[in-house]
Amino acid sequence: MRDVTVGIVGLGNIGGGTLEILAKSAEEISRKLGFRLMVRAVCDRILESKTLPDGLGELRRTTDWREVTADPEVDIVVELIGGTSVAREVIEGAIAGGKSVVTANKELMGLAGVGLWRSAQARGVSLAMEASVCGGIPIHAVLREGIAGDSVDTLFGILNGTSNYILTEIEAHGTDFAVVLGEAQRLGYAEADPSADIDGYDARSKLALLASLAFGVTVTPPSIHTDGIRRIGPVDFAYARQMDCTIRLLGSARRGDGGLFLSVRPALIPLSTILAGVRGSYNAVWVKGRFGQDTFYYGRGAGPLPTGVAVVSDLMRLAREIRYGNPNRVSPFGYSEPGVAEVLPLERQQRPWYLRFCVKDRPGIIAEMAGILARHGISVDAVLQLPSSDKQNLPFVITVESTPEAQVRKALAELSALTYLVEPPVSMPIEGGL
Amino acid sequence: MRDVTVGIVGLGNIGGGTLEILAKSAEEISRKLGFRLMVRAVCDRILESKTLPDGLGELRRTTDWREVTADPEVDIVVELIGGTSVAREVIEGAIAGGKSVVTANKELMGLAGVGLWRSAQARGVSLAMEASVCGGIPIHAVLREGIAGDSVDTLFGILNGTSNYILTEIEAHGTDFAVVLGEAQRLGYAEADPSADIDGYDARSKLALLASLAFGVTVTPPSIHTDGIRRIGPVDFAYARQMDCTIRLLGSARRGDGGLFLSVRPALIPLSTILAGVRGSYNAVWVKGRFGQDTFYYGRGAGPLPTGVAVVSDLMRLAREIRYGNPNRVSPFGYSEPGVAEVLPLERQQRPWYLRFCVKDRPGIIAEMAGILARHGISVDAVLQLPSSDKQNLPFVITVESTPEAQVRKALAELSALTYLVEPPVSMPIEGGL
Repeated sequence: MRDVTVGIVGLGNIGGGTLEILAKSAEEISRKLGFRLMVRAVCDRILESKTLPDGLGELRRTTDWREVTADPEVDIVVELIGGTSVAREVIEGAIAGGKSVVTANKELMGLAGVGLWRSAQARGVSLAMEASVCGGIPIHAVLREGIAGDSVDTLFGILNGTSNYILTEIEAHGTDFAVVLGEAQRLGYAEADPSADIDGYDARSKLALLASLAFGVTVTPPSIHTDGIRRIGPVDFAYARQMDCTIRLLGSARRGDGGLFLSVRPALIPLSTILAGVRGSYNAVWVKGRFGQDTFYYGRGAGPLPTGVAVVSDLMRLAREIRYGNPNRVSPFGYSEPGVAEVLPLERQQRPWYLRFCVKDRPGIIAEMAGILARHGISVDAVLQLPSSDKQNLPFVITVESTPEAQVRKALAELSALTYLVEPPVSMPIEGGL
Repeated sequence: MRDVTVGIVGLGNIGGGTLEILAKSAEEISRKLGFRLMVRAVCDRILESKTLPDGLGELRRTTDWREVTADPEVDIVVELIGGTSVAREVIEGAIAGGKSVVTANKELMGLAGVGLWRSAQARGVSLAMEASVCGGIPIHAVLREGIAGDSVDTLFGILNGTSNYILTEIEAHGTDFAVVLGEAQRLGYAEADPSADIDGYDARSKLALLASLAFGVTVTPPSIHTDGIRRIGPVDFAYARQMDCTIRLLGSARRGDGGLFLSVRPALIPLSTILAGVRGSYNAVWVKGRFGQDTFYYGRGAGPLPTGVAVVSDLMRLAREIRYGNPNRVSPFGYSEPGVAEVLPLERQQRPWYLRFCVKDRPGIIAEMAGILARHGISVDAVLQLPSSDKQNLPFVITVESTPEAQVRKALAELSALTYLVEPPVSMPIEGGL
């Protein structure tokens, strides 16, 4: 029986990491599989500047991806070019050619993954996407197979390394958001245009895919309520600490009555929860199952080698299927026929809330605010005020008891109009049940 | 095509949890698989006292496991009776009858797992054991497939919930070991004979299986150096905290030159590491990969439902194989042909160490001890002494720089003979690189 063969389209960071692992770890991979996994072809638009690692053996180099998808000697095509147009042609071409596909493309899989999986099923090949979300964490394998026997109730994720790095720098050093962001940009940890990271859009795409895996329904990213971290400052961490909490940008998906509550936004979490220990550019996913209770998964969110591990692990799984004559076993979405999510309005979700205000101080402020909250049926849990000398810009916090979000939003709209506010309120749910 | 069918031998805690999940979650399991997983037979020595959950449909009940392994209508046999004699006959009988097997039996799989896997291979059936170690954590799926593309350098595990509960109670409340153990026994968290938990033997069996999966070599538990937690007290946590550390019972497996360093023993770990957040009866595994860097997995170590999730997840994987006509794809040990571990002597392993003494105080003690350490080529890093009034039983700590363990052991032997010692020294490695 011959070895199982691979063609890689796209030799950027992840492609380079994947080739490095396949070259350096060839012997260990063979020991695991019982046969060899060989790279037969690589493709990149600009091929001259790419140096390949030693030890890969003889292979075809091309700038035309069709030479890979049409190569009869290639069993599995790896799509690592990103984007949603050419990448889609590559994957469709590979499936049409009867080849299984591994991809790291979260946008494309979020947009068209279920359709591509159905094409793969019809053609009798496999489609795998472990590398598409949380590169270094095998969270697809976990949700799709490792805890397939459970029924997920809630999933929380710290899904964006850049924003977690920024938040935990503010937490550790009390530095202002803008300063930390600037430093992160200088060091190359944040993009010149940081919006995708700090406004939550990257985390939102990832949450959509994870929710598909956890609940068997596809979710479109724009249907997920998304707030970023631009307004979180050292003062919020100081107040959070008073409450034995810290702050993380959480992607959250939870079963509600007839659908899912979905959001990406900063939230207070207890310092005692294991999620609070996720610092720097790491990613993590916390799952609460109906039967298995709490499990937690942590690792690098990105990087050529951690993401390369995800690609190679998918390749090994698909290689076994091909070698033993039987691809097309398990949906990359965990469920054989994913449905479409019923997204529930967050307004119905009940949570305690953290409300932080900055005011020009004068007597009667607390009384007036408490009055507004009371009129909206909201019970105040505590009023917190750390020592401060700047009476023209005085921060303080009101925490409120568990309340439907609709009431909190209406009260916040009214509170935002108060003339002594120096800036709009900062509001975050408190996720205590972790 | 007919449904895939299951026979369960052993209706204790895990068997009960497994049946509960299969009954309550039947619809969700079918949505994931695309076909049904049906319980066809159950077996227990004492059948009358077992009430089965509703919704399982028609099934055979028997007190003779041979009726399950011989049942032509059963595709997969689940062995949940434990022990190594009858359980082995059940598994061998099932394999001989051409049935795939799911087991939760860590003793048997540690003792005879590779041989059973070879029999399964020869017969063209599968063998799965996710439930055998860290019930609630899908660590087998992770090591065998999720991060199969990585090459594990080091694996640390908090593998025994009872001992972790005891240590974290001492940590939280400063209570003495014996008091916490008594309370744990009263609450049913610890056995009347607690040795397997607190002396590290349970963790040792688990580490042996995890090391097989991570490194592709079988390890016999008695070849693993094992120390328990009986001598760890509040004073050790107080000193550890001075060093920004805490204490956990760690199973440790790491690649060395030509083999593996293996141990189960209490160790100091930094408070900043995510492992330090593992409290109570939880289990956790931390993996450092050559390519994927740090990943971390956390969940319930035991319990009927968390362990039932592991059994059901294995059943779903094997059911897909059977349904699509192709079992026998992946070794439960991750490697197609596991070798035998070369266990390296820990004496060669270099670590910084924590040495805690209790003495009848008099002048010159530190000087004499430091002299002994110096003669063994050991550099003192710090001497720590918290305020204490009891000069007849004065605890203090010496930390030493990274030193081969052989030298530390020789020095400890000499130090233990000093007449002013009230009790033998307590020594622990400091695992800083987490």
